[in-house]
Amino acid sequence: MCMPCGRGRVKRAALPGEATTPMTETYYTNLCAYAKAFVALTPDRERLLCTLGPAVRPHLDAVTDLLYSHLQTISRTAPFLEGRLPTLRRTHRAWLEEVFTTTYDSAYVERMYRVGDAHVRVNLPVEFMAGGMTAIADALMPVVVRLTAEDVERQIAALGAVNAALGFALIVMQESYQISRLLSEQDKFLAITGLSRTTFNNLAATHAT
Amino acid sequence: MCMPCGRGRVKRAALPGEATTPMTETYYTNLCAYAKAFVALTPDRERLLCTLGPAVRPHLDAVTDLLYSHLQTISRTAPFLEGRLPTLRRTHRAWLEEVFTTTYDSAYVERMYRVGDAHVRVNLPVEFMAGGMTAIADALMPVVVRLTAEDVERQIAALGAVNAALGFALIVMQESYQISRLLSEQDKFLAITGLSRTTFNNLAATHAT
Repeated sequence: MCMPCGRGRVKRAALPGEATTPMTETYYTNLCAYAKAFVALTPDRERLLCTLGPAVRPHLDAVTDLLYSHLQTISRTAPFLEGRLPTLRRTHRAWLEEVFTTTYDSAYVERMYRVGDAHVRVNLPVEFMAGGMTAIADALMPVVVRLTAEDVERQIAALGAVNAALGFALIVMQESYQISRLLSEQDKFLAITGLSRTTFNNLAATHAT
Repeated sequence: MCMPCGRGRVKRAALPGEATTPMTETYYTNLCAYAKAFVALTPDRERLLCTLGPAVRPHLDAVTDLLYSHLQTISRTAPFLEGRLPTLRRTHRAWLEEVFTTTYDSAYVERMYRVGDAHVRVNLPVEFMAGGMTAIADALMPVVVRLTAEDVERQIAALGAVNAALGFALIVMQESYQISRLLSEQDKFLAITGLSRTTFNNLAATHAT
């Protein structure tokens, strides 16, 4: 299915421990529209991603290989890969294919949102998202440029679509990462001060007035 | 000057109110090396950026125009531009040129670090950095692809260098944005609870043991 932002989806309830900050359907729908506008992920570009999909697909194993080979050479990222490489590679490979096949709707936003949230729960540093996405673009752009080499305008259109799709995922992940990170910092603060969440909320309400 | 990571620079002291989180020279040097490794901003790519500079330069006004025209169409970014457009455009245009002329060293990292910090002080939402960088890539990639259109391998090399340079700036900005944001949240927490920073630090030390 290659349709821009589908509607009428039934929202799946968050599983226990799956996400610390579940949001409403409206939240994901609004975030979808906002992130699309920001990175110019237009319906034309969504269609182009789908059109590129079949030609790009045979190269996605190599893109995944390049990414993880690269991450293993960096001292701060390598420890996060230890013992988890097959799982991470599988998840990443599936997501890469999704870039060229997904419906960019609130359901996709919700999935990307959970990824950002999960990054906080496993204490992944903030720069892993921007750094990772840069490394993915680095591995993916040559594939796209070669596949469209016969026509400069098509190269530009294809690169623009891929750039928008990666930027879209990055915005959504970082949104949830920041919310989860701030909530987790608040929890630490409450634990240190011995204040309950209720007492703190009451103090905050008084402070705001 | 187009030299990878210069050394021996005299560190300029932060001006009052210029940065809430000034860091040491060693911090910027380490962040420089780490961010370079993450986005694969190699000496070859730094040299290539310099080589591309003269041909790219005449297009940078148009890239800046495209970026700010786009940001003005987005409801959440438009209010941040009101009354500040000439200054923002000038600063952005200067930075764009720097991408193709700067020495990617700890001094550049320090400048980018202050940008992330400044974003927190003017309450810029977190997604403005990833969204903005995606929009910059969107405007810049067509220029690079056309300038190198005679040779696919040169297109790939040029796109890789630009992608690494933008990713590098994004990592550094987001690093300082997150640190400043967490400090600013801590300050809010202290103001709400009426705790002094010293009392809180003492409690934190007790909590950690």
